[in-house]
Amino acid sequence: MKPTIIPFLTTRKLNPENQETPIHFLPQTITLKEYFFIRNHFEYPTQTQEAYFLPIVGEVIRPIIFKLEDIMRMPSKHLMLPLECSGNNRAFFHPKVYGEQWEDGAISQGLWKGVPLKDLLALIGLKRTALEVVFEAYDYGKRMDLEGDFHFARSLPIQKALHPDTLIAYELNGKPIPFKHGYPLRLIVPQWYAMASIKWVKRIVVIDHLFKGPFQEIDYNYYPYKDSDKGKTPVAQINVSSIIQQPQSYSILDNGKHVVEGIAWTGTGVIIEVEVSTDGGESWHKAILGQEQSHLYSWTFWKYDWKVSSKGEYLIMSRARDSFGNIQPFKAKWNRKGYGYNAVYTVKVKVE
Amino acid sequence: MKPTIIPFLTTRKLNPENQETPIHFLPQTITLKEYFFIRNHFEYPTQTQEAYFLPIVGEVIRPIIFKLEDIMRMPSKHLMLPLECSGNNRAFFHPKVYGEQWEDGAISQGLWKGVPLKDLLALIGLKRTALEVVFEAYDYGKRMDLEGDFHFARSLPIQKALHPDTLIAYELNGKPIPFKHGYPLRLIVPQWYAMASIKWVKRIVVIDHLFKGPFQEIDYNYYPYKDSDKGKTPVAQINVSSIIQQPQSYSILDNGKHVVEGIAWTGTGVIIEVEVSTDGGESWHKAILGQEQSHLYSWTFWKYDWKVSSKGEYLIMSRARDSFGNIQPFKAKWNRKGYGYNAVYTVKVKVE
Repeated sequence: MKPTIIPFLTTRKLNPENQETPIHFLPQTITLKEYFFIRNHFEYPTQTQEAYFLPIVGEVIRPIIFKLEDIMRMPSKHLMLPLECSGNNRAFFHPKVYGEQWEDGAISQGLWKGVPLKDLLALIGLKRTALEVVFEAYDYGKRMDLEGDFHFARSLPIQKALHPDTLIAYELNGKPIPFKHGYPLRLIVPQWYAMASIKWVKRIVVIDHLFKGPFQEIDYNYYPYKDSDKGKTPVAQINVSSIIQQPQSYSILDNGKHVVEGIAWTGTGVIIEVEVSTDGGESWHKAILGQEQSHLYSWTFWKYDWKVSSKGEYLIMSRARDSFGNIQPFKAKWNRKGYGYNAVYTVKVKVE
Repeated sequence: MKPTIIPFLTTRKLNPENQETPIHFLPQTITLKEYFFIRNHFEYPTQTQEAYFLPIVGEVIRPIIFKLEDIMRMPSKHLMLPLECSGNNRAFFHPKVYGEQWEDGAISQGLWKGVPLKDLLALIGLKRTALEVVFEAYDYGKRMDLEGDFHFARSLPIQKALHPDTLIAYELNGKPIPFKHGYPLRLIVPQWYAMASIKWVKRIVVIDHLFKGPFQEIDYNYYPYKDSDKGKTPVAQINVSSIIQQPQSYSILDNGKHVVEGIAWTGTGVIIEVEVSTDGGESWHKAILGQEQSHLYSWTFWKYDWKVSSKGEYLIMSRARDSFGNIQPFKAKWNRKGYGYNAVYTVKVKVE
């Protein structure tokens, strides 16, 4: 009998809890809940019965408090998609930036089930003044830069809120959403970084102006300069990206055949090509994509069979391209808070 | 009811299993088995009854096969000590080196119980020709650089083997040693890096020459040069070292009071001083050591109360000194296989 060998989440912080998916060791399409990355701004909220009721108010014709059981009886939709923290790979920015030092595991894929938000909004009727939809969450706490307590809250432009795939979700991977991931109700915003997919939805408010909460206006913006807020733009769509899961960086391989493999994903269209270089970017080879494009949003497996006969050091790279023509850059666009990293993924190996 | 928040081992590799202790999140003196770092060269050996019998042969007067139950009836000794992988912190060498990319968690502390090896050797009697003692382990497998299968095996000079604190151990933290950590019998060599404390001891052979196995002669040597084996010296005693557990690097702190805290340890004597700098090494302050020196080998907690009033970026450093006069260098001695890293520990934080 051999002992069980399993990977674990990588602990980045415990208070609040922030843990990373062991992405190099998970070949599955779906990330099991034990391995789903965890990202919190605050302590976990208290679990209350109140969370089974979802008020939608503001610039609406008939404000309604939806019951969870009513939501669960409405026509639903399944979406398989990765949630990626906008700070994924933050640790790899040069110059380095402050904040959680996520490496490449602040991303996980799940099968989400829920009701299109547009169907809820259709029931209550939007006023013509409706400009944005604000999602308030149950989690709250203090910020270092402002006085007082803040609930986590963010808005979507009305068009994105009405997109047929923007869901009020209540299931992950065929089960009620685990509490740590937003039970009972979580917003799911496909193609956007995961700060948009707020957990523990408390209340939805339709507003006639631009939402100015600190998680909208201060955090989750690209600040291109170290000492100035010039050029600030909001974080939204996921940048096209890929990672090499195996081999891992600074590993020693024997000469012979090796499979270079990983995943690729994008927030704009679908992945149409992944290229691999084994000579530091001089020459590129097409990887085999491991998945039909049936799921619009899900990540794509890829692999490349590498035959190496000469000993030495090798820089292996992966570079994904999407149907919007976006391609991973050699260097990620630096920004002060470290969002949206998507540089060509590079591992260095030695063949002995 | 709030959800449970616990740290996890950090997975570096699964085949063979290599996992790192979440050292920043463990304030305990003893590392629980769930959090004890795991380092393997090979797949786990098969568990057999044979392992309850320990032959000691070679340059001895009366070769004996000791039974586990006999060993457990002999006078025993408890030792609290850290095991540190010689590759701990390998990821921090510049230029970077190949091999498992351990960060600062390839170290764990346990309370080991066992019989001094010298008592076993006294029962069988050493011949005057005895020069080294070889420990053969049950785990085995292939190496990339040599043909055939190799058991993990290493030797100790006879003086170290006869040291009263070199143990044949059978308990960790009050329980039989967990299988992953060497059950039923593990050698414990205080003050040496953990490659010496071999797991799953199969056989002990006293020899009249220097042992030349690959884990003695090829691995676990300091190679100061990239392309030459000149100046090769064996890895043995643990270098004096310390880490800052909190705050973590690239974290953002508010201004006010913060506790800078960590652990320090050495393989030569005991820790007599830990200094902390909060200005990148310009000025140093004595940390408060959190432990009486009752346990000769165990690591030492330390802390420093830091009051910071000005916003800005800070380089916080810790530097330990031991009773042999050894002190952590600003830069670790580079070596090709990345052993013995012990540079002054540095974290960068931003105060907002």
